[in-house]
Amino acid sequence: MTASVTAALLVIGDEILSGRTKDKNIGYIADYLTAIGIDLSEVRIVPDMEDEIAAAVNALRQRYTYLFTTGGIGPTHDDITADSIAKAFGVAIDHDPRAVALLRERYQEHELTAARLRMARIPHGADLIENPISKAPGFRIGNVIVMAGVPSIMQAMLDLVAPTLQTGARMVVETVDAGSLGEGAYGDGLARIAAEHAEVSIGSYPSFTSTGFNNQIVIRAKDAEAVSRVAKAVRALVESLKSDRVPL
Amino acid sequence: MTASVTAALLVIGDEILSGRTKDKNIGYIADYLTAIGIDLSEVRIVPDMEDEIAAAVNALRQRYTYLFTTGGIGPTHDDITADSIAKAFGVAIDHDPRAVALLRERYQEHELTAARLRMARIPHGADLIENPISKAPGFRIGNVIVMAGVPSIMQAMLDLVAPTLQTGARMVVETVDAGSLGEGAYGDGLARIAAEHAEVSIGSYPSFTSTGFNNQIVIRAKDAEAVSRVAKAVRALVESLKSDRVPL
Repeated sequence: MTASVTAALLVIGDEILSGRTKDKNIGYIADYLTAIGIDLSEVRIVPDMEDEIAAAVNALRQRYTYLFTTGGIGPTHDDITADSIAKAFGVAIDHDPRAVALLRERYQEHELTAARLRMARIPHGADLIENPISKAPGFRIGNVIVMAGVPSIMQAMLDLVAPTLQTGARMVVETVDAGSLGEGAYGDGLARIAAEHAEVSIGSYPSFTSTGFNNQIVIRAKDAEAVSRVAKAVRALVESLKSDRVPL
Repeated sequence: MTASVTAALLVIGDEILSGRTKDKNIGYIADYLTAIGIDLSEVRIVPDMEDEIAAAVNALRQRYTYLFTTGGIGPTHDDITADSIAKAFGVAIDHDPRAVALLRERYQEHELTAARLRMARIPHGADLIENPISKAPGFRIGNVIVMAGVPSIMQAMLDLVAPTLQTGARMVVETVDAGSLGEGAYGDGLARIAAEHAEVSIGSYPSFTSTGFNNQIVIRAKDAEAVSRVAKAVRALVESLKSDRVPL
């Protein structure tokens, strides 16, 4: 069996914490990593403060196979991700000739303001991740993958970096729709099944709609046969309880 | 000047990390806290694992005025938030008679399965937060506020708990629309303004639309006069640069 490959995601930006910008990257990256066999294990959102970013980077890069970051690599003074990563790794940072060359593909010489050149500040020892949309690159240093915050650019960078990543077995997932059958009605039986089948992870997820609760039971594991076996047991449990109609 | 009141948010649930469920609570809570004068300073998302939850709770509750949690207080075996919080605080946990009474308002005696009674497990010393939608309560222990993950229930709980919270001065925000004027065009001037006005926080936020980048500059502080003064300077900068049309 393949050892599991894990990841954390660090979302960087005051604008997410203030509510001004609604994050669109967490859900996308969660889906993407799950699909390629990397287990997203933790997410953090931190403000544009160098010490906060560096501390989170060091906590997360040591704990998981990969750390992805989004945000803070643009041209303005509040874009401090590259400097914070250099600080976290204890390496120097300067204008990277490879990155400057990429910016020259987009900007004429007189347009290369000091602000735009900030986007070529790359920590020493990092590899660039190209940006097919607006040229200013992301980068990878050690197991840390630094991407833009603008969703379309982040997505393009993720596509470029994904083929270079170590991946594990993909998660196999089966969903049993319990409909309006209450979580509290099947909870005892489900707990028994979960206790008997530690080889799978079983989650129960209510959603609340205009017509009341709708519940789904999700069985996940990397062993397809185990998932199928347990899903069958869960389905039998749900069928046997359809007489109990109290939601949740 | 009022001291600032800070908060962290801990989102609990495998389903968010796997991408199965897209979080709808972070953005809502960010907006809500900002509006009442509480600075959301950090967010974490962790899986349904007791040690992970307890460690995050202890790290965050010691650092911020308040810690809010969402998720993991339902009736099934994977709902382990209450037990994890009790562990984090080192207090006992058992069926709470006040919570059982609330459940009795919804369920008949024969419907009170062991699973449903799990929702009455409350750490010793906690105050309940009522749930007007489906009765199973949230709770508050110390500075930790434990809410449901289902958005409509979380929102109702937040409405109930908000009037009991200490709040600080509200953030005053002005936005200067730079339109298609590039971040790289105004970045140098904006950095100068930011350096001269440490009393405000200035952020520059590009969004990428079908017609190219659209940039907004946001000035934030609790001092309305300072925000207005700096917004005026930023507006003048943007106007003076309208001839430079290279986006980003």
